[in-house]
Amino acid sequence: MSERIDTLAIIGVGLIGGSLSLALKKHHAVGRVIGVGRSQANLDEALRLGVIDAVATMEQAAKADIIFVATPVAQMPRVFADLAPYLSAKSIITDGGSTKQDVIAAARAALGEKFSQFVPAHPIAGTEKTGAAAAFATLFEKRKTVICAESETSSEAADRVSRMWQIAGAEIHRMSAAEHDDVFAAVSHLPHLLAFALVDMLAGMPRSADYFNYAASGFRDFTRIAAGSPEMWRDISVANRVALRKQLHQYRERLTAFDHWLKNADTEDVEAIEASYQRAATARRAWQSNIETGEVSAVSAQQPSTLRDAD
Amino acid sequence: MSERIDTLAIIGVGLIGGSLSLALKKHHAVGRVIGVGRSQANLDEALRLGVIDAVATMEQAAKADIIFVATPVAQMPRVFADLAPYLSAKSIITDGGSTKQDVIAAARAALGEKFSQFVPAHPIAGTEKTGAAAAFATLFEKRKTVICAESETSSEAADRVSRMWQIAGAEIHRMSAAEHDDVFAAVSHLPHLLAFALVDMLAGMPRSADYFNYAASGFRDFTRIAAGSPEMWRDISVANRVALRKQLHQYRERLTAFDHWLKNADTEDVEAIEASYQRAATARRAWQSNIETGEVSAVSAQQPSTLRDAD
Repeated sequence: MSERIDTLAIIGVGLIGGSLSLALKKHHAVGRVIGVGRSQANLDEALRLGVIDAVATMEQAAKADIIFVATPVAQMPRVFADLAPYLSAKSIITDGGSTKQDVIAAARAALGEKFSQFVPAHPIAGTEKTGAAAAFATLFEKRKTVICAESETSSEAADRVSRMWQIAGAEIHRMSAAEHDDVFAAVSHLPHLLAFALVDMLAGMPRSADYFNYAASGFRDFTRIAAGSPEMWRDISVANRVALRKQLHQYRERLTAFDHWLKNADTEDVEAIEASYQRAATARRAWQSNIETGEVSAVSAQQPSTLRDAD
Repeated sequence: MSERIDTLAIIGVGLIGGSLSLALKKHHAVGRVIGVGRSQANLDEALRLGVIDAVATMEQAAKADIIFVATPVAQMPRVFADLAPYLSAKSIITDGGSTKQDVIAAARAALGEKFSQFVPAHPIAGTEKTGAAAAFATLFEKRKTVICAESETSSEAADRVSRMWQIAGAEIHRMSAAEHDDVFAAVSHLPHLLAFALVDMLAGMPRSADYFNYAASGFRDFTRIAAGSPEMWRDISVANRVALRKQLHQYRERLTAFDHWLKNADTEDVEAIEASYQRAATARRAWQSNIETGEVSAVSAQQPSTLRDAD
């Protein structure tokens, strides 16, 4: 099977969909990219910037070799339903959703027998920018793409989608959808919720302009993700709410403990605060150091794990 | 009064103390910098790097023209008590603590009649690095330094400390200590606590290496401040615990609301989540845009405010 994709259809030509197109074009790995979207202005911009070669209908998109669904996850059930009647037997459909169990359930319901042609995937990359104009060809370089194949998933289709992401520069990891949703609730979805909640709280204060005026670089980095797409993160939060609430519950218990320690501030309370900060700082510094030396995967591989690294 | 400082004493030659020394040296605004510290290795490094010109005793430091106390805030009561008996009538003592009401109370208690020579200050700058080796001359450029003068504070002393920080590149803001502690609980101390709490929670998970392995750029930025000094942030959290608990209480109420919305996930719940994310994203984007165009102070100045911008 050739690695080259004759026609790629992007449903939702934003940062993720647009960047995949640009990456594949850069590596001459795609013939023609067609786009479907809700906003004509965004599609016009995508055309103008060469992110897509043509605007398409859902019916035209369904005939592409690979159809990449890169909309917010809440729109995917409708997208799958719109594509299903027109999907050719040779087409591969895949997605870029940040949650996997809900997307898989939606695809299974909408695609019926064609569900085997669906490859659930999650490229772990992004910025706080949105829209086709934010897309760039190197977004996925040295990033991970997680593939969550189900038992019915065609292994040929999964391999082809994996190669597509590898051409875009990503390393492929495979895990179950349940594992995926649990991990990303903890390291991505919860942090986003926490950052949004803090900025909204500050913005609602009577003297919020004064507060923001004294916010410095720590605040800037802590809240960068709160500038992300509210619609996208609403969808992710709701779609993955079972795993997210589990992590949120643990986190709220931690904050309750901090409140208790700060209220009493006896020697053992102060020690408990420092111990928690110390464990965090040690873990965070080790993580940063591993990232910088590219040894994150190696650290993980030394641990007993049910996650499979397939790269 | 000349702007040049003949002798500057730094108590605690770390990132903040060391960077002030390097900034003043760079602008030829100081004759000699002497340092006092707990760690001989750090003092040796400070000497080697030219951050200080000599190691001093507390008695020698107390005779300097300006004595800058840049230790973690919990050590300041002891430092003030050690300096007090030797403090000359012409010396100005100032600090770099991230909390002000507790530092002022400690200085008032230790310095007695010499309390008028103390100028409470907080340079709003930092990185997650610690120690003299982390110091650099441009740390304070275009950053704010907040001066929280009390009614007894010598205005000459406050002006001289202000000029010192201006030479180091900072813009001077003046506000009361209570206002200071309230504002920084919200925009700095709470975010630090939240980041430490999240990383400690993840580090304590049975499969934490797997979790960290999938953490991406959003997590990196959100948790950068969790690599900060556990001792320093323990001290700040405890010193400012009244204001911090007030903000933490509000924040926990927000998280309780999110848990409720995620549990039900009815239309109005989902709308409430999106509305909160939207308000946050709008505020965060406006803040970033103001920073980039240098209009943060202007935005604040357009609002009725009890904070005084003095620069």
